[in-house]
Amino acid sequence: MTSVRRIAVLTGGGDAPGLNAVLFGLVTRAEALGIQCLASEDGYEGLIKGTLTPLDSTRVRGIASQGGSVIGCSNRANPFSYPRRDAEGKLTTEDVSERVAWTVRNENIDLVVAIGGDGTMAMTSRLAPLGVRSVGVPKTIDNDLAATDVTFGFQSAVDFATMAVDRIHTTAAAHDRVMIIEVMGRYAGWIALEAGLAGGANVIVLPEFEYDVQRIADAIHARRKQGQNYSIIVISEGAKPVGGTHAITKDMPAGHLPKLGGAGDRLAKSLEQLVPEHEIRVTVLGHVQRGGSPVAFDRVLGIRMGVAAAEAVARGDDGVMVSLRDGKIVTVPMGDAVGKNRNVTALDERVLAARAVGVEFGVEF
Amino acid sequence: MTSVRRIAVLTGGGDAPGLNAVLFGLVTRAEALGIQCLASEDGYEGLIKGTLTPLDSTRVRGIASQGGSVIGCSNRANPFSYPRRDAEGKLTTEDVSERVAWTVRNENIDLVVAIGGDGTMAMTSRLAPLGVRSVGVPKTIDNDLAATDVTFGFQSAVDFATMAVDRIHTTAAAHDRVMIIEVMGRYAGWIALEAGLAGGANVIVLPEFEYDVQRIADAIHARRKQGQNYSIIVISEGAKPVGGTHAITKDMPAGHLPKLGGAGDRLAKSLEQLVPEHEIRVTVLGHVQRGGSPVAFDRVLGIRMGVAAAEAVARGDDGVMVSLRDGKIVTVPMGDAVGKNRNVTALDERVLAARAVGVEFGVEF
Amino acid sequence: MTSVRRIAVLTGGGDAPGLNAVLFGLVTRAEALGIQCLASEDGYEGLIKGTLTPLDSTRVRGIASQGGSVIGCSNRANPFSYPRRDAEGKLTTEDVSERVAWTVRNENIDLVVAIGGDGTMAMTSRLAPLGVRSVGVPKTIDNDLAATDVTFGFQSAVDFATMAVDRIHTTAAAHDRVMIIEVMGRYAGWIALEAGLAGGANVIVLPEFEYDVQRIADAIHARRKQGQNYSIIVISEGAKPVGGTHAITKDMPAGHLPKLGGAGDRLAKSLEQLVPEHEIRVTVLGHVQRGGSPVAFDRVLGIRMGVAAAEAVARGDDGVMVSLRDGKIVTVPMGDAVGKNRNVTALDERVLAARAVGVEFGVEF
Amino acid sequence: MTSVRRIAVLTGGGDAPGLNAVLFGLVTRAEALGIQCLASEDGYEGLIKGTLTPLDSTRVRGIASQGGSVIGCSNRANPFSYPRRDAEGKLTTEDVSERVAWTVRNENIDLVVAIGGDGTMAMTSRLAPLGVRSVGVPKTIDNDLAATDVTFGFQSAVDFATMAVDRIHTTAAAHDRVMIIEVMGRYAGWIALEAGLAGGANVIVLPEFEYDVQRIADAIHARRKQGQNYSIIVISEGAKPVGGTHAITKDMPAGHLPKLGGAGDRLAKSLEQLVPEHEIRVTVLGHVQRGGSPVAFDRVLGIRMGVAAAEAVARGDDGVMVSLRDGKIVTVPMGDAVGKNRNVTALDERVLAARAVGVEFGVEF
Repeated sequence: MTSVRRIAVLTGGGDAPGLNAVLFGLVTRAEALGIQCLASEDGYEGLIKGTLTPLDSTRVRGIASQGGSVIGCSNRANPFSYPRRDAEGKLTTEDVSERVAWTVRNENIDLVVAIGGDGTMAMTSRLAPLGVRSVGVPKTIDNDLAATDVTFGFQSAVDFATMAVDRIHTTAAAHDRVMIIEVMGRYAGWIALEAGLAGGANVIVLPEFEYDVQRIADAIHARRKQGQNYSIIVISEGAKPVGGTHAITKDMPAGHLPKLGGAGDRLAKSLEQLVPEHEIRVTVLGHVQRGGSPVAFDRVLGIRMGVAAAEAVARGDDGVMVSLRDGKIVTVPMGDAVGKNRNVTALDERVLAARAVGVEFGVEF
Repeated sequence: MTSVRRIAVLTGGGDAPGLNAVLFGLVTRAEALGIQCLASEDGYEGLIKGTLTPLDSTRVRGIASQGGSVIGCSNRANPFSYPRRDAEGKLTTEDVSERVAWTVRNENIDLVVAIGGDGTMAMTSRLAPLGVRSVGVPKTIDNDLAATDVTFGFQSAVDFATMAVDRIHTTAAAHDRVMIIEVMGRYAGWIALEAGLAGGANVIVLPEFEYDVQRIADAIHARRKQGQNYSIIVISEGAKPVGGTHAITKDMPAGHLPKLGGAGDRLAKSLEQLVPEHEIRVTVLGHVQRGGSPVAFDRVLGIRMGVAAAEAVARGDDGVMVSLRDGKIVTVPMGDAVGKNRNVTALDERVLAARAVGVEFGVEF
Repeated sequence: MTSVRRIAVLTGGGDAPGLNAVLFGLVTRAEALGIQCLASEDGYEGLIKGTLTPLDSTRVRGIASQGGSVIGCSNRANPFSYPRRDAEGKLTTEDVSERVAWTVRNENIDLVVAIGGDGTMAMTSRLAPLGVRSVGVPKTIDNDLAATDVTFGFQSAVDFATMAVDRIHTTAAAHDRVMIIEVMGRYAGWIALEAGLAGGANVIVLPEFEYDVQRIADAIHARRKQGQNYSIIVISEGAKPVGGTHAITKDMPAGHLPKLGGAGDRLAKSLEQLVPEHEIRVTVLGHVQRGGSPVAFDRVLGIRMGVAAAEAVARGDDGVMVSLRDGKIVTVPMGDAVGKNRNVTALDERVLAARAVGVEFGVEF
Repeated sequence: MTSVRRIAVLTGGGDAPGLNAVLFGLVTRAEALGIQCLASEDGYEGLIKGTLTPLDSTRVRGIASQGGSVIGCSNRANPFSYPRRDAEGKLTTEDVSERVAWTVRNENIDLVVAIGGDGTMAMTSRLAPLGVRSVGVPKTIDNDLAATDVTFGFQSAVDFATMAVDRIHTTAAAHDRVMIIEVMGRYAGWIALEAGLAGGANVIVLPEFEYDVQRIADAIHARRKQGQNYSIIVISEGAKPVGGTHAITKDMPAGHLPKLGGAGDRLAKSLEQLVPEHEIRVTVLGHVQRGGSPVAFDRVLGIRMGVAAAEAVARGDDGVMVSLRDGKIVTVPMGDAVGKNRNVTALDERVLAARAVGVEFGVEF
């Protein structure tokens, strides 16, 4: 092993509150350890195009409290499936991974630190045979990576969604309404589960369980009988009714996922007939959940992970990802993160607690 | 004039942050002035049904910071058009205004304090010939009442919408996106105008001006040419394209307005073709804007209006509404508030300021 | 073991965001399990006085989002050292534990659920020989209980303190100032550590390490040399200089602790001479950190702990405390919580991360 | 009048949320009007030192939501009383106003736009005889300038202070406490008045009225008799007891004002004897109130004022200040702003409203 002198840093995939905290911890610590950092802006875009930009501790000072990523995120720049127009102008993709390897050699990059989700980790792992050494930092706002106990960004999203649920209570109660709040979560329903539980939702609908709209209507009627003339439903954007189809699939090309949307509207439409005595209103929080200043929890976690990544780099690690395990930052093989998601199960203690306080999930457990 | 000893208090229409502050100011001050308060819960419902509930200073202590209304709001209980099922079970309406007058006489109510919007003030004015004396407190989250400079609740809604726009910036920038945020405002666009200006929106679309989608696309392209690869659009729920139809009309029966919705989705759909290089995402804030703890501005304004209403009652006023005029609380004839809305105009100084900093409104001024 | 039918519930010690979430989870779940709940208001006060109040699921509905405790907290009502005036009117204390035992027998209470900190758990354990069965739920805003990985309330306090640090940055920078923010933490510095790290403090001063004011002045000067004309210091209320005395001690009678205060002011005074080129300003956050709506994290944790406590009661547990261990709610012997605190150590990973990003702790590690 | 082509812009005095919004409106609009902007960083420092920095619309894009001032504020750089060390190293001051005039001539500056408070406006007016033309934008977080109805920054400070008061309620109630919150306001008590009213304080203590501590103790006792076992006091930093002295005076040299502080602690000390049955706790919000992202109200007002200042410049105004009058932005002679403060009076409607809901002011009106 040669000692690491120069690294490229990138943030891939959708943004998440805490990315800048990771960069702050990583770059500040790396510099102190004598390692020079360069940024590949917009995910792998910089490495693909061969244009790296300077990234030193001055640039990351004070950014831990900011949303977004000062070096740009991208979910388009997949080295193995990079978008281009063919001769007829039709959009297609090509494998440009060799360009990444070339940039790494050409710029004397010893290692790439990739901060990103499942997709970014998969790309990064596939670059290893081309001679690209790497350390990963896990990122997913949905908190669905099996390889780490918790990811930064999740708590910020949950807090914002919870505040939205909080605010809807008074207006729901005042007007005999059924209020539907659609939150993020395509495949994993952790945001809906925690924000629904924290915000006092009456019904929580998750992607993991196909929902039976009649059960939801029954829950609304049962509340009505107990004098509760309104109901609040928190639904994941990826939730679907029993037998319903999912608007997106995993093998759609990155960056070209169709807008899923509509989970809230779809539920509203099918409920309309079943609870005609209620007005139904839908709030779609959308990408507002990804933005804004991270909560303290995500900042502290991000800084810790960034510092740990710098230290992993310094001690010569390759092909590993930093991870939070039982309160401690450790490293795990990067492959462990790829394709292994953590989903909500019927036996999850949060689900049991929610059921214990009367929350309906639209499904018979 | 007999001196006023006993009043009924109600909050009508949709809820707005600050209603409880009004109640706190009104009831506390009235009690000190020797006036007994009773609540008509759920707007005129209590007066229609003849069931008034006690309302003293103990009940309103500490509520000024809370959203909603502790005595319930309603936009259904219109004394002149009250919903009922006819013989065949079809929904119709009837005039039950005489029941209100009867309750007032029967319960020895000297005067009704109605806290509500245009609709509530109109109902209240029409009750005068039946012997129902009244004082009004203006309420509209849209801030579109001509009879007062500003209404409580508006600033709270603007602050929340602004925070949502703030949060969307980083994620919009990170992914070359066009982000549409739909905010409240059926006929008046003040929330969109102020939240758009405060949040740094690039395009603001208001109900007052039919929008030309091509102008909006041009603005997005112009930004792109200047290296701004994303755009943020704030749109009122009541906005419509040139020649488009409005989903709701004023003469639809109160409480049965169809969900307007869709202004954001509709714009997204028509933009999709015109800016194919961008992903478009829609956030619909919905009733989240009406809820939550009022900002300090709305609490102070609400308490002042409540106290002023109590004092107007004590000095024998009838048929007036409290109002903020040039920083001072005054009273104006209640009729002044009815049917006279204040809309955004092309010459409004806020519009001019927004244009001065480069905001596009989707219309040629 | 007789099956448990009727329990008394109390919240002891200082308040913490999340207490109501515990009550919501506990009472709702207990009721569903056929267990009747009664409240001992103001900690042990209700059990001492023999006056228990009803506590059912209706009373706890919707409270999880509220600060404080709907059944009142108290750090005065210590059954083994209850304040009273002696014959000459001087304040003394007496052992009234037998009264608690009497109330328990007299009211047919099968078990007491005590939600509280170290002190409350100690009292509760000492009541066991008198025949008082119990289940505990750990509470400390300082997060310093060894028997659980994390306590509710802590994250809410950290978030608020972090926001305060965030806000001070611009004004500190604008005026060449040294800004000191004093946060809670008498014996354990977790709040200062996490809020300081998350908020980007330059110096963090903790109760665990006596500080050398010269080191702090040196850090300020070092920053100045690097062109950073201001510094932000986060200090725990319990921090003290090398050789300094602590204003409070553990054996002072509960409820009569003198105001500690002053850690920030004291540091300001001793710094004044050493950094005369800077104005120094002090912010003392005080009890504002204990109040307010809990963040989602604390609500979810609180509800889970409340539900788990109800289930522990139902299955006949006695003398145990619910606890979070590696992400799971378990039960541990209540004695494990008593007198075993978790303090910040020099090797704590958060301390190492903070040092890695350049934070000075006022001590040579 | 020569047309204005080139202006210097500065932000003077303490910072206030909204300064960046003014800069955004001013610079963006000026540029569109063909006027070049340069920054005098740190108030008059840049003009005194002769070093102006570029300031164009790119630099101010997106800053309206940020606290502080991107061009730095200063309350030290007084051209007529600039600090320097004399031969013996003692700190003295000198008149460097001619240097400002020289920079203006040398850099071809046609006019100075000064954004600042009373002090900054006074300096700017005094520069006129030296040939320095100017337009002012009023700034004071205390909202005490007579020449404008409201200033940006005030509402942000009030909102933060109100949130602090909100949070203290639960913990005050839980422990029979008297909670004192010290807020900003040296000479004018508007922040304390509005935050106290909005937050539900029981006692509000203002600099305008010397307080009688016995009245405050009586109010606390009166509450106790009514079963309210706690009290919340909001006090301005400049409040003083009857016959007490004020820690600062207006003629102290700028930038060397001693820390006032202590109003809260002083009240606590004198109350201690009078209400021995209560623990007293003090929170000192300090400069946290000046920082952070401005609320929407302050951003909109700031942008409007900045745009209006650019337009005043373009039409050749000199010696004027923009001002908000009855909801409209106008210009007034800059001299009108100097030395004419707006203080809280006994007859202010907010004071009357506060008294109407039972707030004690510590003074007989």
